[in-house]
This record gives sequence, C-alpha cells and structure tokens, in this order.
Amino acid sequence: MDSNNGTTIIVMSGDMDKVFAAFSIAIGAAAAGKETNMFFTFWGIKAIQKGNLTGRSLFGRMMGLMNRGGINRIGPSRFNFFGIGRWMFKKMMKNHNVSSLEELLKTAMDLGVKLMPCQTSMEVMEIPREALIDGVEEPCGVAAMLERSDRSRQTLFI
Amino acid sequence: MDSNNGTTIIVMSGDMDKVFAAFSIAIGAAAAGKETNMFFTFWGIKAIQKGNLTGRSLFGRMMGLMNRGGINRIGPSRFNFFGIGRWMFKKMMKNHNVSSLEELLKTAMDLGVKLMPCQTSMEVMEIPREALIDGVEEPCGVAAMLERSDRSRQTLFI
Amino acid sequence: MDSNNGTTIIVMSGDMDKVFAAFSIAIGAAAAGKETNMFFTFWGIKAIQKGNLTGRSLFGRMMGLMNRGGINRIGPSRFNFFGIGRWMFKKMMKNHNVSSLEELLKTAMDLGVKLMPCQTSMEVMEIPREALIDGVEEPCGVAAMLERSDRSRQTLFI
Repeated sequence: MDSNNGTTIIVMSGDMDKVFAAFSIAIGAAAAGKETNMFFTFWGIKAIQKGNLTGRSLFGRMMGLMNRGGINRIGPSRFNFFGIGRWMFKKMMKNHNVSSLEELLKTAMDLGVKLMPCQTSMEVMEIPREALIDGVEEPCGVAAMLERSDRSRQTLFI
Repeated sequence: MDSNNGTTIIVMSGDMDKVFAAFSIAIGAAAAGKETNMFFTFWGIKAIQKGNLTGRSLFGRMMGLMNRGGINRIGPSRFNFFGIGRWMFKKMMKNHNVSSLEELLKTAMDLGVKLMPCQTSMEVMEIPREALIDGVEEPCGVAAMLERSDRSRQTLFI
Repeated sequence: MDSNNGTTIIVMSGDMDKVFAAFSIAIGAAAAGKETNMFFTFWGIKAIQKGNLTGRSLFGRMMGLMNRGGINRIGPSRFNFFGIGRWMFKKMMKNHNVSSLEELLKTAMDLGVKLMPCQTSMEVMEIPREALIDGVEEPCGVAAMLERSDRSRQTLFI
C-alpha cells in the first residue's frame, strides 16, 4: 500500500444519495488497495449512528429527531428528488441489484475503511460515544482528519 | 503535460449553478494544459444527456421527467436562489457576457476535457447509452474514475 | 512550510453550516502550518462581504437581497435543518462554546489564511470591490485558484 496514495472522504451531508455516493467511492478506493478514511461530521454523523438517538437537552432532542434511525433510515436529498422518497429510491436500487446503504456500510468496514467520527459535531449535537455503531474509531478533530488527508491522493468533501 | 498533475471532477449535482461551476473549473484546468476528467454520476448525468429522455419503467419515467431536457434546461439549485429561476440566472449571465452551460460544454469538449458517464447511475435511472450526447467516453465505474483521479493533482466532488 | 502541501478550499455554498465547515478546515490546516487558501465564488462570496450590499441593476439588487448582511447573517442550509433557524444553530454552538462564523473568519485571517474573491461571481452579482471586507486578496479567476491548488495537498469544493 502506497502510504501517500490514500483516499479521504469528509462526509458532511446526511442526504441518502450523497452518503450513498460517499460509500461507493470509499469501497472502490479500498478495493483498489488504497488506505481509505471517512470523516463523518455534521449531518453525516447519522450514517454511523445506531437508531433512535436523542440528546438530553431540548436542542439535542431536536437534533436527535433529525438524526434518528441510523443509516437505513436516511432520506434522499429532498429537492433533487422532487418529493420522491426513500422508499422509491430503495426500490429502484433493489430492482437494479444495487446495495442498500446498510450493506455498503458493512462492505466498507469489511474492506478496512476507517470510520472517523467528528468530535465537535458529537458535542454540538449531544451525541454520546455509545450512540455510534461498533467499529468506528475514537472521535477526533479536523487535525486528525488532515493527517490522513495529507497522505491521501484525493480528499473529497461530500 | 505532467501525468500526475491532472484534474478530476465528480459531478453528482444536477443544479445549474453547480454544473456551471464544474465546467468553469474543468475549462480552466484544460486551458492550463492539465489532463481533465469529469465523471458524471446521479443527477449530474443530465448535463451530458440529449433532451426528452425517459426510462421504460415507471421509476425510470419518473427519473426521466426529472432529468428531461439536456444541459440547456438544467435549473439552478432552488434554495440558494429563493425562487429565482433559470431564466433570470441566464439573463444575468448574458448581461455580463458569461457563457451558457451549452457553450461551456462545447468549450470543454473542444479543449479535450474527457466526459465519463457513470454506468451504475445510468442503470439505476434507466438511461440508455444512445441518450447521451456524442463525444462522451464509454460508461464506466468508480474504479475507472479513481484511476484518473490517482494521476490528478486535485479531485473535486461537486 | 512545504510548498506542495497546502490546502485550497473552494467555497461556493452560502449555507451557514457549510461555510462553518469550510472555515473549520481552513483554520485546522493553517494551524498545522499549511499554506491555506479559500476561493469564494457564487453564494460563498457573502462570507467575505460587508453588510447591506446591493447591486445597481434590478438583478443585482435581487442578488444583493439574498447576499445581504455579511458573515454574521448567513443562514443554515434550510433543508437539513427542517426549519430550525440560524438563531438555534448559533445558540447550540454558543452552549457548546463553538466559535461564531465571525470569530472563525477573524481567526482564519489571524492565522494567515488567504481569502480569494472570485472575480466572475462579483461581476455577475454586481458586487463592487469595496463591498468586500478588508484583508482579502485582489479578485481573481479560476486560473489563479488552480495555481494555488496545484501546490496544495488537498483541494475541497464546499
């Protein structure tokens, strides 16, 4: 593995289509033998959350409502879909034998993609460590993400 | 041409302003002598489609409706524009002698920018090969895109 | 400072959360000693504008309305927030001792982050040079941005 040829993906979006794209690229990179990192921040955090999470404060609870449900409940970006919902996107993908987000997440982990939760996002949204799925790295900040990025050939912001 | 100094742009968005930005950067890169690639995926595909396309299934038709019309009918991202439409954006650009998307596409092709259609997106959206404009490369996957990206100095996700 | 290890961030979005992410990454990069550039284009321009700007023509005025107010009046991306507004985002950040956008901008400038206004965007939106905050570089184009990007280790499109 070329230590300067990795791939780092910053996942800020919580939209299904963008999270889907992020995992597709990460899996392609890992399958090609590249060191692959995903840094989940802001709305992207929900892709690595377990279901039904709420923060303790009013704000945390409201954010929790938005983030509830883990990766299999993520909706598509509403405005590119013109009201066509998650169910339709899923059905289309199923009709065409495209993996679900949950399968993509599992495949990424099996291929050794490193999942980095953004610590600041967790604090602001009041998401506790135990709310994240097993297998993610310790929550970290921008500095740690940039270290990985500095040995990557491409860094994407999604 | 430095073979490790190319530019690769992943165009996922179908919003006019973002497609516009993607072509502006691609043209700048190609004009500077850089090997320049654009990988069109998801909603980005419509930038390289001919007009009035529909898939054969219900889902394909609904996707087709959204994607109908080719590059000169792409609308701006509604929510940054607060309801100001394509016509206004076009008029503003014309008043200031800014090229239209169609002109940008032509210029990019004249400068040798390589247009790569995402095969998976075409399958899911039921877009046939003949629905794409002339001059694009063969539909390909993430692996082929990453190969180009690995010899690029910058890879953007738009 | 390694002259090929910089960071370049293209800020096209005018959404508070994305502008916030852009500055957070820029500050992290500059703090790590990397040459850091931010290229503000389209809606991103408002992050480096002084308040209450309007263009002279009807179109310019309408764009000005959207861009009015400078960095401390930027709103979050409406659709990921489900109607939760700028005030709430700010309150959450304050509760958690997260810097405001205005503070982030100041910190970035103190750390030597270079702020590059996109000339074409300024022309189309009819934003005069004097409408920009002090300390930004001369307005420039894609070519100048790509030069910085070519000596950067990562270039992000936000």
